[in-house]
Amino acid sequence: MALNTDFGVLTGNDVETRRVRAGGLIFRQGEPGDELFVIKSGYVRIQIGNRTIAELSADDIFGEMALIDSESRSATAVAITDVEIVPVSERQFLFLVSQTPYFALKVMRTLAQRLRVMNQDLG
Amino acid sequence: MALNTDFGVLTGNDVETRRVRAGGLIFRQGEPGDELFVIKSGYVRIQIGNRTIAELSADDIFGEMALIDSESRSATAVAITDVEIVPVSERQFLFLVSQTPYFALKVMRTLAQRLRVMNQDLG
Repeated sequence: MALNTDFGVLTGNDVETRRVRAGGLIFRQGEPGDELFVIKSGYVRIQIGNRTIAELSADDIFGEMALIDSESRSATAVAITDVEIVPVSERQFLFLVSQTPYFALKVMRTLAQRLRVMNQDLG
Repeated sequence: MALNTDFGVLTGNDVETRRVRAGGLIFRQGEPGDELFVIKSGYVRIQIGNRTIAELSADDIFGEMALIDSESRSATAVAITDVEIVPVSERQFLFLVSQTPYFALKVMRTLAQRLRVMNQDLG
């Protein structure tokens, strides 16, 4: 997903990285959430109920929904392979949006991309 | 939709306003698009094919998708009542995102809200 490549700047060597084993649950639909994640390596499946709505890889983000609207997790995230993910807190997120408009646009593009996928499914 | 109220600052008296009669087409799914719109008065229906995906009113925005990802209009917009809408060009949009992080967050919230509606339909 070329559009999202720039999130990679958030996954440098000096940031906290979380590791999840293949098959591991990252978060569950309906839970409260206060972080988004950037994938540093591996593959993550996003699902609503048993329905897969996205499979994401390095430099993609997920978990941004709960951060944006302060509601519960809108979907479940599961590690397909062993993954390394970098958490971004709400505070960091707001800082990035305010200081780097490019980051804000990238998040918007991610959301728009997901909406278009949804639209196709419904259309 | 309380979340979106702040887009109202874009619809002051000194801005270009476009009027569309009830039933009028604002834009059609698949067309190129280089503006988003803020509703100043009236009601707008957003539809994909014959399926209504949102009905919007004063201070809501629509048409942001094509601006964010430079693809064609993802849906059709029709005036339900006589409407007044304020166009926001890509240039204005990028300026607003870069100068007013709050605007960027509001756009993200709008997108997140639509994704959650879609998710419910699919879930």
